Amino acid sequence: MAHRDFLYSTCQRPAGIRSHNVTKPGDPMSNHPRLPDVVDGFGPLRPTALPAVAKTMRRGRELVLPDLDAAIRALGLKDGAVLSFHHHLRNGDAVLNAVVDAAARAGLRNLHIAASSIFPVHAPLVSHMESGVVTGLCTNYLSGPVAEAVSRGVLDRPVVLRTHGGRARAIRAGDLKIDAAFVAAPSADPMGNISGTEGPRACGVLGYPQCDVRFADKVVAVTDTLVDFPAQRIQIGQEHVDLVALVPSLGDVSGILSGTTRPSEKPADLEIARNAARVIEAAGLLVDGFSLQNGAGGASLATAAAVGRRMTDLGVTGSFASGGITGFHVDMLEAGLFRSLLDVQCFDLRAIESLRADPRHQSMSASMYANPHERGAVVDRLDAVVLGATEIDLDFNVNVTTRADGIIAGGSGGHADTAAGAKLAIVTTKLTAAGFPKLVERLGTLTTPGRSVDVVVTDAGIAVNPARADLADRLAFAGLAPVPIADLHRRALAQAERRPVHVREGDVVAVSEYRDGTVTDLIRRV
Amino acid sequence: MAHRDFLYSTCQRPAGIRSHNVTKPGDPMSNHPRLPDVVDGFGPLRPTALPAVAKTMRRGRELVLPDLDAAIRALGLKDGAVLSFHHHLRNGDAVLNAVVDAAARAGLRNLHIAASSIFPVHAPLVSHMESGVVTGLCTNYLSGPVAEAVSRGVLDRPVVLRTHGGRARAIRAGDLKIDAAFVAAPSADPMGNISGTEGPRACGVLGYPQCDVRFADKVVAVTDTLVDFPAQRIQIGQEHVDLVALVPSLGDVSGILSGTTRPSEKPADLEIARNAARVIEAAGLLVDGFSLQNGAGGASLATAAAVGRRMTDLGVTGSFASGGITGFHVDMLEAGLFRSLLDVQCFDLRAIESLRADPRHQSMSASMYANPHERGAVVDRLDAVVLGATEIDLDFNVNVTTRADGIIAGGSGGHADTAAGAKLAIVTTKLTAAGFPKLVERLGTLTTPGRSVDVVVTDAGIAVNPARADLADRLAFAGLAPVPIADLHRRALAQAERRPVHVREGDVVAVSEYRDGTVTDLIRRV
Repeated sequence: MAHRDFLYSTCQRPAGIRSHNVTKPGDPMSNHPRLPDVVDGFGPLRPTALPAVAKTMRRGRELVLPDLDAAIRALGLKDGAVLSFHHHLRNGDAVLNAVVDAAARAGLRNLHIAASSIFPVHAPLVSHMESGVVTGLCTNYLSGPVAEAVSRGVLDRPVVLRTHGGRARAIRAGDLKIDAAFVAAPSADPMGNISGTEGPRACGVLGYPQCDVRFADKVVAVTDTLVDFPAQRIQIGQEHVDLVALVPSLGDVSGILSGTTRPSEKPADLEIARNAARVIEAAGLLVDGFSLQNGAGGASLATAAAVGRRMTDLGVTGSFASGGITGFHVDMLEAGLFRSLLDVQCFDLRAIESLRADPRHQSMSASMYANPHERGAVVDRLDAVVLGATEIDLDFNVNVTTRADGIIAGGSGGHADTAAGAKLAIVTTKLTAAGFPKLVERLGTLTTPGRSVDVVVTDAGIAVNPARADLADRLAFAGLAPVPIADLHRRALAQAERRPVHVREGDVVAVSEYRDGTVTDLIRRV
Repeated sequence: MAHRDFLYSTCQRPAGIRSHNVTKPGDPMSNHPRLPDVVDGFGPLRPTALPAVAKTMRRGRELVLPDLDAAIRALGLKDGAVLSFHHHLRNGDAVLNAVVDAAARAGLRNLHIAASSIFPVHAPLVSHMESGVVTGLCTNYLSGPVAEAVSRGVLDRPVVLRTHGGRARAIRAGDLKIDAAFVAAPSADPMGNISGTEGPRACGVLGYPQCDVRFADKVVAVTDTLVDFPAQRIQIGQEHVDLVALVPSLGDVSGILSGTTRPSEKPADLEIARNAARVIEAAGLLVDGFSLQNGAGGASLATAAAVGRRMTDLGVTGSFASGGITGFHVDMLEAGLFRSLLDVQCFDLRAIESLRADPRHQSMSASMYANPHERGAVVDRLDAVVLGATEIDLDFNVNVTTRADGIIAGGSGGHADTAAGAKLAIVTTKLTAAGFPKLVERLGTLTTPGRSVDVVVTDAGIAVNPARADLADRLAFAGLAPVPIADLHRRALAQAERRPVHVREGDVVAVSEYRDGTVTDLIRRV
């Protein structure tokens, strides 16, 4: 019943509205004057009293606030609040900075930023850290000026670095309690229904905030494109959203998406790609139903391309490719190499177009993608994943978190998740980079445990984890002649011109969490 | 890393797999032999130990069980367990009966059935109630032999009758704790991804179980159509599903869907429909952005048709139609009368086809539809809802729960939810039915409080809730000449040949809960 244009609330009846009869119209108790206090087998009961009920209703309330300052006020945040963000806008994101600026204007201090990733575009966060507005950070990936500042000790509390699946787990488990989740919404309606595919700064899938909005205390849709109710292609429904805050722009389109993403054509990349594809085939995985994940970089896509060529030759139809999805994956879908794409994040415009048009291209939440404690994760269905590495040690442990100088420049993202889930986790790498050896005796940081890494493919040979004797036999049989990883290590050291710096003592600036919440390593102040 | 075809677990290494080196390959602690027990600002930490981690992983486990007996065993249910079901298969559903039969074969007793609706097809439940296998029931709608048995006192504990939104609220709030949710899955893959639109017994949207699967202790996808991973058009993702149980058939297609649903052409229905449409127009709601919900019965659709004709005449484009969606709603969408459909349940094949093909036709969960305690419900955005009634009293309270003989034959479903949310809640009714008056002094059961009902439209006149003086003025101005509801009551009594039986004393067989968990009424044994 009634509000707005014939507006009055059932609990606050304005003067001048008369009651036309004497039987207390609409009072349910006039029909049932006495309900008992307790019913056997049901227990104590509260009789319905409509005025009290009405106060609990939202009654079509639209809560669209004109800017983030108003949103921060409406949220009633306190010092020390945990604010969460997602990274589908990547290095084009203007939302995180704008929200923290507004929080700073509101005089908030000691905020904890829970972001799925931090990019160079988030550099303004450093001054908020220096001033004490932000004193806590957790993220799955950390690069650029914020990473450098953290490594130099800008925060007193250690940053927590998680995996994509570990973050979803931590939110679900209550390890990471979010006070306010800010969802960058390419379009939203006044009730808070959010679409990622519609709007001038569309980013496609919204896989990461799906977890935040279920468990956060408050949820804000931050949008530059307010559309009529109901939004089209709703990905996050209004039942999860408390209010909508308008901003002039979500960010820089060129940093959000590339037009399209293509495989590398560099000879060294192509050589590694061919070898990785041969390893997958030799492992016996290139049969119908094959599933693959690879990164979105040119070298990773070169491996996907090499695998795709073998699939075509062999007449193999894969089941799915997963992870961050590019136009190149769409090409593979449309060529019939895979039956489906499972997409947690679109990397280019072509991926978004495919998501909109092709039901075989399906979105997934971070939890469905990689949460180890949910009822099923897509990473656990992977046949092969092709991963990169900053450093690999002789036990196949991998560092993708810190650079050779000890400064943070990454983090697991989905690295440790996919390695743990896939039947065959391949790390591809050159022997050296920027003069540093990639194969090392001791890692700067242990990100992904070696037990989950099966093969290292380099430009100078292939090494199989000794725990995978079966796989070593298969590769040898296929003529791939795997070598001990110690051989690759020796050759890397011989090629390298310098040695990494390892900081083993001093203040802990970051804790590297494994997907289950245990700790793989500590990162020290540089 | 590895399982199945090169299968061994990292925690249980089979004999014969040799370790090739002496540095404990893959043991992350060999890289970092000593992590401290506590890190300042982070707290106590558990170092990652991969064998322990591996045990927490599901590692692509497919848990497809050949039948429901195996599923019941795997769930480890105990006497007194709460089993939940949804009603998208309506009177064609074979799943609820098959699950309860299997539970009975397993020797379980004192089960509580938490169904979103119970239909005549669920008659076999009665013998399980008589034998003590089932001793508790909660549902939003209850009709057929189970309703009659409940009314005659087959259960010792009262049945709890909720609204669609109230059930979603109760699950979210923990008032209704589900041990095992059984999702009738028109198709599912071995990881438990569920589609409602694919498969020979497709039912379309799966709006109701969306709530169950988020909060149930265990979730079973019950399917007759196991598809390759990943399922297409996933509506419930594998992260919510514990296991898949195969059944020969989900049920009888003819009971699940009709081919198409059409408006009534009976003169009395058409007269009421025209009047309801005139009320909506007179209320000033027929402007761009108008939103409407109506039932799927022929008389309700006749009102929608009458409203649609006025929208066409006036050149009005509505924002959405919501609720259970029929082919007739699809016609209205395609004619441009509405920009969108928000669908909690498909009623016919044409609705499913539209859901698959037209992104303007969107699904919603029961929580998004009607949960009063979530952050926003679609019912709160409704301009007009057209509802039915078994009885209406002089305070505009409505009974849709019990028949004139006192036997349960319905329940709120979305009745009380939409009445509370809509700006204009219209109840349409004839003055009498089967010789009984529909306007009464005392209701058999109070389902929907009169404060949320604005207008009663009958074949003999229109009555406006006295609390809505504004609306009475508008109707009078439009020449609709509203009459006091007492006049309609007198005419109904004059027409009626018999009087309803009211049972006010005796055992309570059911409790009628309002959407917020308060109690509107008690239903007594007949």
